Parts: sequence; C-alpha cells; structure tokens
Amino acid sequence: MIVHEFKMRVRYADTDQMGYVYYGHYARFFEAGRAELIRSLGFTYREMEERGVMMPVAGLEVRYLRPARYDDLLTIRSGIRELPEKRLKVYSEVFNEAGKLCTGGKVTLAFMDGKTNQSMDCPEFFLQVLRANWSV
Amino acid sequence: MIVHEFKMRVRYADTDQMGYVYYGHYARFFEAGRAELIRSLGFTYREMEERGVMMPVAGLEVRYLRPARYDDLLTIRSGIRELPEKRLKVYSEVFNEAGKLCTGGKVTLAFMDGKTNQSMDCPEFFLQVLRANWSV
Amino acid sequence: MIVHEFKMRVRYADTDQMGYVYYGHYARFFEAGRAELIRSLGFTYREMEERGVMMPVAGLEVRYLRPARYDDLLTIRSGIRELPEKRLKVYSEVFNEAGKLCTGGKVTLAFMDGKTNQSMDCPEFFLQVLRANWSV
Amino acid sequence: MIVHEFKMRVRYADTDQMGYVYYGHYARFFEAGRAELIRSLGFTYREMEERGVMMPVAGLEVRYLRPARYDDLLTIRSGIRELPEKRLKVYSEVFNEAGKLCTGGKVTLAFMDGKTNQSMDCPEFFLQVLRANWSV
Repeated sequence: MIVHEFKMRVRYADTDQMGYVYYGHYARFFEAGRAELIRSLGFTYREMEERGVMMPVAGLEVRYLRPARYDDLLTIRSGIRELPEKRLKVYSEVFNEAGKLCTGGKVTLAFMDGKTNQSMDCPEFFLQVLRANWSV
Repeated sequence: MIVHEFKMRVRYADTDQMGYVYYGHYARFFEAGRAELIRSLGFTYREMEERGVMMPVAGLEVRYLRPARYDDLLTIRSGIRELPEKRLKVYSEVFNEAGKLCTGGKVTLAFMDGKTNQSMDCPEFFLQVLRANWSV
Repeated sequence: MIVHEFKMRVRYADTDQMGYVYYGHYARFFEAGRAELIRSLGFTYREMEERGVMMPVAGLEVRYLRPARYDDLLTIRSGIRELPEKRLKVYSEVFNEAGKLCTGGKVTLAFMDGKTNQSMDCPEFFLQVLRANWSV
Repeated sequence: MIVHEFKMRVRYADTDQMGYVYYGHYARFFEAGRAELIRSLGFTYREMEERGVMMPVAGLEVRYLRPARYDDLLTIRSGIRELPEKRLKVYSEVFNEAGKLCTGGKVTLAFMDGKTNQSMDCPEFFLQVLRANWSV
C-alpha cells in the first residue's frame, strides 16, 4: 500500500453559514491529497495528462463525522490499498488539528485515453511508479 | 415517496480543464435539487433553520456515468423514498439535455438542534409536510 | 445599449460563516448573468467558443453594498453600454428580493483566437448580433 | 508597509475548460494570502472574529495578465501600504513559477461589530499589531 499525508488549511471560502466546511468542498481536499500522494512518488498528475492519460472520477463516497472549521489546519491522509487495473481507488481521511477524524472518503478514478476518450487500463508506466513505492 | 425535478444550467465556473463538470460541484447541484424539492412542498430549508433545526450532511455517494458539459441545461431529479427518523436520505439523479443520466447520488442528512448542536429526530412539523405530500 | 435581467437563487454552497454570500462567488453570478444576456440575443457563449473565439476575463471590479443571503432569489441585471472593439465590458448589478442593490460590478473580457491564443478584435459576427439588438 | 509571500498550488477544482484558473477563484487565493499575512504578524483573522470584529469585503479589483494553470505553485504576495481607519486595503499579486505576474488585485475590507452589524473603525488592538510590524 501507499499512504501519504498532506496539510491544508480551511479558508473562509470553504465555510458555509453553519460555520462548517461545506460538504462539497471535501472533494477539493481529497483531490489535493491524492495529487500530493502522486507527487510524493516522483510523478505528477499533470505529467499523466501530458502523457495522454486522463483520470476522470467515476465514484465518490464520503462520511462526515465531525465538522471542520475555519482556519483549521487539516491533515489529509490519502491511501492506495491495491494496484489499479481499470480503476484506481484512493481512500482519504481528513483529520482536524486535535487529530480527530472529521471525514472519511473513497474516490474511484477511471483511466481514459485523452485522444479517443475511451476508457483504458491503468498504464504500465504508472503501475511501475506504484510498484516502486509499494509497501506491504 | 416524493419526487421533484428542477433545471439548472452548467456554468463556466463548474467546468474543469477536462471540459467536464468538476466532480465536487455535483454537491451543489444536489443541494439545489433538494432545496427545490422542499420548496415544492410549501416549506423551505431556510424556514427549517429559522425554526432552530439544522441539517448537516452525514453522507454522500456519487456515481459519475457521463460527463456534464458547459451550458448544458441539466435536470436534477430529487427523491425521498422513506420517511426520515434520525436521518433523511435524498436520492439525486442528474440528466443532460438528451435525457441521459450523467450522475446518480444519495445524500444523507442529519437533524441537529441549532442551539445545542445535538443530533435529534426529524421534527414532527417536517414529517407532517412530508406526509401531506406523500404518494405511494 | 443592451440590458438583461436574470434570476438566480443563493445556495448554501454560496454562503460563508458570516452568513453572507462569499465575495468570490459573485463572479459566478456575473458569469451567469452575462451568459443569459448573450442567450437573450439569440446567441450563446458556447457557440462563440465553437466558432473558435475564447473570451478570457481581463478585469473585474466589484463593490459590495449589502450582503446577499441564503435562499435569496437574486436579480442579476447585466448591461453592455458600448460596442466592443478589443474588449467587451459587461456591467452587472445584483439586487435582492426587496429590490435593494447588493453588489455592483464590471467585468472586462478580451477576445482571443482559440487556435493561436492571440488576442483579437471582437469578431464581426458578434458585433452584428449586438447591433441587431442595440437600443439607444 | 507590510508585505508577505505565501505559496499555494493550483488544483483541478480551480481550472475551467479554457485550461486556466477560473477568474472568480482568485478571490480565494487573495483571501489565503491575506490570512497568512495576518498570521505572520502573530495574529489571526479567526482571533479577530473571536474578539467580535468581522471584516466583510467592501470592494474587489482584479487585473488578469497571464493565466495560471493546473498544478502551478503560485506565489501570492500580499501587502498593506497604509494603516487602516475605516477600511483596510490589501494589495495582492499572484506570480507563477517562472516569476511572472499572473494577476494583480486589491481587496478593500470593512470593520464591523459582530454583535450590532454596524461598521466601525479599525480596532486599536489590530492597529497595534500592524504598527509593531510596520516597515518604512
């Protein structure tokens, strides 16, 4: 598996009138977390697209346990638990500064050929990146 | 059950560089759909908060089937299939102008006392609104 | 000149913990207003891009006079006061349900050749659309 | 004057189908920049609100010179050039990784008593923070 932690601060733009982070904004936190996970492997999602592979999101699941609030420095823990074939699943957990779990989620991403817009298997070059960083 | 349809147009702000609606923005579409479902019952979520009841989101599930694109006039079909006790589940489907399903989802909302921030059962006044509009 | 009014409701996603619409979200309201102004002329911004002309934003000015709040049905009045040459200026005013001015703004848009990414003059086909609808 | 620099990465959520950062999202970058400027003074905007002072935005001006793009690590330079009386003006500049200016802007913030919602002068405790860090 591969696990990565990344810190990100809640901005006013993220809050709603309940004083909580709006439920839709966790998608952005999860996205940042998985982009930084990939960067930690010596690769970037930008390079993925430059190589002609897009990764549209196919599924999202989120459980909201505790509200995150303005100016909280959140820790986003992103994890990949299995090597992808047609789909990559990234597990995301968001912790507040007290170390309490605010939100847990799973994002399922597809692989798509950027020229044909056809779905494809995980490209071999990305599997190699994952395998090189895999820990049991 | 209660079903309601509402139309909403995709704005440039909703798109991302893939040319699709960003996956996190469906939360906003779902929110608009369920607000309009409640309005169609002769009630509003604003009144819910004015009566001291907040409805924070406890869970979100989304499946992305087809991309929605800039300027598409989406139809958001929102449905309540069972009377809530501690949680209200709202099912959302987003269709494009060709009538094809782009996205399906489920949002689970809790009921919270706005003064104490304690979770509570669905208030009786809201159950009455739902029952008065319920169809089998 | 050309003036168009469009109604748009404030969603929870638009609010911040002050209970107001977050200042950055007016950009989205302005965008919707000018897209609907263009649609009212029998043209769409989507067609503009399909004809190879992009209109990136070059400038934005906003004055915030009164807060807009959750569930307000805002009226966005968009106006074009002069025929564009290199730049199109769109004036936007946002009124609340009581008819009070919440926000006034101006967005300056450039014309850009979508293939070369070079700035260009307003295309003749768009000038014709504007002239056909111009009122003194 | 007081100047502070802060780095922030462009996320997919920030881009639009033109492949640029959507013009409205700079408000969020500016907000993050000025929050971090205040934090660099040993104070936070969160504390400001805890002391009963809100700072709603009264005005925004943005000039867009170059597009910022996905995954760019932007530098946001925020500056205060004059001690506030009724209004605080924060100047923001956003640079891309090549050091080129993408966007320049000015945000004007009011001071408001959080209990009465009446506008007020800049509180003395914040003036002291600014003076203690002022450089000529």
